[in-house]
Amino acid sequence: MTAHSPDTIASVLAHADAHLDQSRERLFDLLRIPSVSTQPEHQADCVHAAAWVRDQLIGLGFDASLRPTAGHPIVVAHHSGPAGYQGPHVLFYGHYDVQPVDPIALWNSPPFEPQLIDGPRGKRFVARGAVDDKGQAMMFIEALRAWHTAGGGIPARLTLLIEGEEEVGSKHLEPFLIANAAELRADVALISDTNMWNVETPAVTTMLRGMAYIELTLKAANRDLHSGLYGGSALNPINALTKILGQLQDDSGRIQLPGFYDTVKPISNAQRAQWDSLGFDESAFLGDIGLTAPAGERGYSALERLWARPTADINGIWGGYIGEGSKTVIASHASAKVSFRLVPGQDPDAVMAQFQQFVHDRLPPGATVEFASFSRSPGIEVNTDTPWIRAALAALTEEYGQQAILMGCGGSIPVVSSLRRVLGIDSLLMGFGLDDDQIHSPNEKFEQACFHHGIRSHARLLAKLGG
Amino acid sequence: MTAHSPDTIASVLAHADAHLDQSRERLFDLLRIPSVSTQPEHQADCVHAAAWVRDQLIGLGFDASLRPTAGHPIVVAHHSGPAGYQGPHVLFYGHYDVQPVDPIALWNSPPFEPQLIDGPRGKRFVARGAVDDKGQAMMFIEALRAWHTAGGGIPARLTLLIEGEEEVGSKHLEPFLIANAAELRADVALISDTNMWNVETPAVTTMLRGMAYIELTLKAANRDLHSGLYGGSALNPINALTKILGQLQDDSGRIQLPGFYDTVKPISNAQRAQWDSLGFDESAFLGDIGLTAPAGERGYSALERLWARPTADINGIWGGYIGEGSKTVIASHASAKVSFRLVPGQDPDAVMAQFQQFVHDRLPPGATVEFASFSRSPGIEVNTDTPWIRAALAALTEEYGQQAILMGCGGSIPVVSSLRRVLGIDSLLMGFGLDDDQIHSPNEKFEQACFHHGIRSHARLLAKLGG
Repeated sequence: MTAHSPDTIASVLAHADAHLDQSRERLFDLLRIPSVSTQPEHQADCVHAAAWVRDQLIGLGFDASLRPTAGHPIVVAHHSGPAGYQGPHVLFYGHYDVQPVDPIALWNSPPFEPQLIDGPRGKRFVARGAVDDKGQAMMFIEALRAWHTAGGGIPARLTLLIEGEEEVGSKHLEPFLIANAAELRADVALISDTNMWNVETPAVTTMLRGMAYIELTLKAANRDLHSGLYGGSALNPINALTKILGQLQDDSGRIQLPGFYDTVKPISNAQRAQWDSLGFDESAFLGDIGLTAPAGERGYSALERLWARPTADINGIWGGYIGEGSKTVIASHASAKVSFRLVPGQDPDAVMAQFQQFVHDRLPPGATVEFASFSRSPGIEVNTDTPWIRAALAALTEEYGQQAILMGCGGSIPVVSSLRRVLGIDSLLMGFGLDDDQIHSPNEKFEQACFHHGIRSHARLLAKLGG
Repeated sequence: MTAHSPDTIASVLAHADAHLDQSRERLFDLLRIPSVSTQPEHQADCVHAAAWVRDQLIGLGFDASLRPTAGHPIVVAHHSGPAGYQGPHVLFYGHYDVQPVDPIALWNSPPFEPQLIDGPRGKRFVARGAVDDKGQAMMFIEALRAWHTAGGGIPARLTLLIEGEEEVGSKHLEPFLIANAAELRADVALISDTNMWNVETPAVTTMLRGMAYIELTLKAANRDLHSGLYGGSALNPINALTKILGQLQDDSGRIQLPGFYDTVKPISNAQRAQWDSLGFDESAFLGDIGLTAPAGERGYSALERLWARPTADINGIWGGYIGEGSKTVIASHASAKVSFRLVPGQDPDAVMAQFQQFVHDRLPPGATVEFASFSRSPGIEVNTDTPWIRAALAALTEEYGQQAILMGCGGSIPVVSSLRRVLGIDSLLMGFGLDDDQIHSPNEKFEQACFHHGIRSHARLLAKLGG
């Protein structure tokens, strides 16, 4: 197998350019399916989205099917590549599920009615999932379509694995990888679920934070109480919960779980120097979201805090009377959802246990507590000295006419560690999101320019990987 | 005017006994009207309840009408008493509004479909408002009915003032009292909205706590954020809110607002001795609600903490994602409702200001806070050396065959201070609730025995006051 000719690549790219509107319309069809994985009422929508993706891949000549799990189904699709193909087997991972839409009142348009609107950088798409991850996954599928239609066929041996539980911690993915390891084992995994450095500067992400997400309910009396008749004698579980969670960080932003930092991998001098050279402007980053002062751990630079230091965030809290007006009630229970972003070296299970101990150590007499754990995944550092990363940097640099960079990401993509642990393969994280895409927030958007460059970059990368 | 003959009183009581079922059915009619004053969607129901009460009083020969306010209407009814009446003018105060019903899932029957069920002390009524205050107000009206039908007529000069905003702080009542002072000024106010000491031991309440109720919203970023992409750099308003509110009390339960205790009136040795003699069993009190250990301020007895020491309770808290499952969001804002029960000597406006200062002093950089204040009323101590209290103790002791006692109450009845300030009159607090009536909670109930004794006690008291 020889490298594809420049003419072939040129016609693939020209096809992508000429059919951008159709590519966008297909993405919009997928965005209209409200596949919110965490909400049981959207279960059928998740199956619908999975089937839609499967059908797209069948149309491109893939052997594609829905594979059941204990949760939402996984789309698996195979293509053997060109006749006589000898190159690497590439596993593309994406997810068709999306985050919930609340607070719905803050959306400027219905989250599952995608809008094409004018923004400061040209056209943009607004919908839940516009970028995370339907938009990013569809860039790859549209790159495949360009090759299928204008490049003489799919240029590499490929497996696509598109799951429906990434937003809820990918709970059933790892058992599926284990059960189907022989079928899925490839030479490298390609994932498009990360960001660029900025709209002009493409990037490959080599560091990801992990996560431990836990919900707790603190219980006191066996019923709600009148605050006049019981106040001063009966334990108030909301007071108790704020007293406990209010101690999560000290005044310097340091997390107070016992042993939390013991295994955190220090940031190397080389890493620190490379990130410092990027000239990140934290004031502008925070100014975009209306903040004037950074929060978080003192003694670390902004990028270090975002990419290489762990966090403790209360993602939700509720208890007592939360309607309009006043109610003089002492609630019987109060709850919170708490997540820890983890860095390489930290064990998610150990952090879960540390948090439970932290709460138990502060539990007032008469109170009980219940925990429910959601996702748990370790932080990840990808090996940067691989042909895959070199191929991605080259494809991006050609596409943008500007040197692509290596960066970290504060978010979590649990599959990266599963792929390494179960299948023994590295991941290549080439993404086209921007910091202001408002993922997980109202009015999530994706720049059309990013979508377009993303299709073209994937098309270029496929030629290099399969070459 | 001479005292009523024992025969007259006997026939009034006999009538009350013979018509208890009808009295209960009338109460049930009122309980079916969902007059939740804090919820705008129940505005018409509040008017409906007020009109229902007015019509009952017209049926008993009162000059009764609905009087508009900027909020819910007030029922005012007058009766001049027997011809040639020379005795005191008695102002009866009650309220037709009720608390919200949530959490609705914990009710065993629909809150506005009153149930007559068998309990350990005989029949009981279950509904929102069963005791607070529809049940208690209806005891008085049913006592009037017994006099009207079987006693030769209403035995005293009476004004009834039944408002619809007690559960939301009686905001429009005081302006109404000021505007109608000449019409409403009486010799004493009679209020039935408090408890007995226990089901066998009747009581007159002479001490009430006041209240300052405030809502706060802490704001950070201008939108919800992804906790991976921003965690470690962006302020989390839920973390900040728990950190602030978690400092409301120290480990000994002492409230940390600056100056909060400066004006608290100390408990006299005589008061302390009287309360100690009641032999209050805090373990049993807490055991009834499933708690094993008391909370609150150390260094005070249980009754002191409930009746004569101030509190700080978070009545509600909310922020971020509170649905099923997990969402990795940093919210843009978080809110809480906080109320302080106040004791004589404390100024509710000063406490509101202390709380706002407490929050501002702890506000992290980049956060803003907004406050909304709800009810505010001072703590009350009633003069115990009055003919009204002596009359009530005598009526209760006759009815129960057991000495009635003087006690405190941890709750707040804002009208008591308004009546004293605006009209210059004392209140007589004679109530028939029990600690386990679950007022403001799911499955609020009223013992039929309490309702029955209450009608009879009010009928006896009317004879003494009018005699």
